[in-house]
Amino acid sequence: MRIILASGSPRRRELLDLAGVSYEVMPSEKEEIIRSTVPEEVVKELSLMKASDVAETHFLGKAGEEFLVIGADTVVACDDEILGKPKNEENAKEMLGRLSGRSHSVFTGIALLWIKDGRIWKTVNKAVETKVMVEPMSEEEIEGYVATGEPMDKAGAYAIQGKFAPYITGIEGDYYNVMGFPICTVMREIK
Amino acid sequence: MRIILASGSPRRRELLDLAGVSYEVMPSEKEEIIRSTVPEEVVKELSLMKASDVAETHFLGKAGEEFLVIGADTVVACDDEILGKPKNEENAKEMLGRLSGRSHSVFTGIALLWIKDGRIWKTVNKAVETKVMVEPMSEEEIEGYVATGEPMDKAGAYAIQGKFAPYITGIEGDYYNVMGFPICTVMREIK
Repeated sequence: MRIILASGSPRRRELLDLAGVSYEVMPSEKEEIIRSTVPEEVVKELSLMKASDVAETHFLGKAGEEFLVIGADTVVACDDEILGKPKNEENAKEMLGRLSGRSHSVFTGIALLWIKDGRIWKTVNKAVETKVMVEPMSEEEIEGYVATGEPMDKAGAYAIQGKFAPYITGIEGDYYNVMGFPICTVMREIK
Repeated sequence: MRIILASGSPRRRELLDLAGVSYEVMPSEKEEIIRSTVPEEVVKELSLMKASDVAETHFLGKAGEEFLVIGADTVVACDDEILGKPKNEENAKEMLGRLSGRSHSVFTGIALLWIKDGRIWKTVNKAVETKVMVEPMSEEEIEGYVATGEPMDKAGAYAIQGKFAPYITGIEGDYYNVMGFPICTVMREIK
């Protein structure tokens, strides 16, 4: 069975590599349209949208091999409000100020579509939550972190595996889920 | 103030690098002698032993600059029994079999010695615990992981940041503590 990752994220590839899975990368280029405002629902919807887009474009209606298409989407949620990627440095500082000294949640949605003879015969679509506790940060620390440039393309304005690591007091749940891919859950579903 | 890391561990260096700290590496070469059998006490003792050894060898009794010497030691504990580095592949399989499908604890002890005018004027010595939940593993999975060679030089026979990642269901506490260095706690003490 060929495994297709419907995401171009290097971190997701890194985690699938660690699991020793052979796969091909085919990112979805569909525009993200969100109907829900509930974080769990948003990531489920978007991951399914990405996987479905790749399935439709490449595999549906074509006889032959078996495929598993995997989509994923991650958001940061603070008081049930979704924090996306920061628009600019000022916006990144605001986000980090909100996350400082408290806990928030990171949700990653995964969608797994099993395809056989050009038809989807099984779908798994779920969201995994991890709680993240952030150390109280001074204004200088926030400014110093924003100046590294790291926050600009990250949901919630931080990268847990990057220079933000020293500000993470602790987590509850799957660390790799915060990196954008709950590899343990994905592997359990694949098995 | 010069900061000295009394450990040669590449992972500890990597985490201090992420925190943007300038430091020098001077590993302690003292033989590890453990008196306690309580995991928290063992890691506190060993981290303090390493930091003290480096302080005595290089800095004590010498006037001049200020130094901060940091020692660290990590153990894996399952039912309060300490799992060290596996002796051989068979031993690694036994350890992983014990960790499979349940939670255990990882303790890292840190010792920070502030030195001025050749004398230690402040000491911090504490242990940080992180709970780690491991997915149930089949015998083939355990054998496959041992065959990667990764377990052989790791306490508890696994590396959380390596090929064992897909078997980690979740954690409670500091992820970096499991990697061997609770960088958030260390930075809080330095500040």
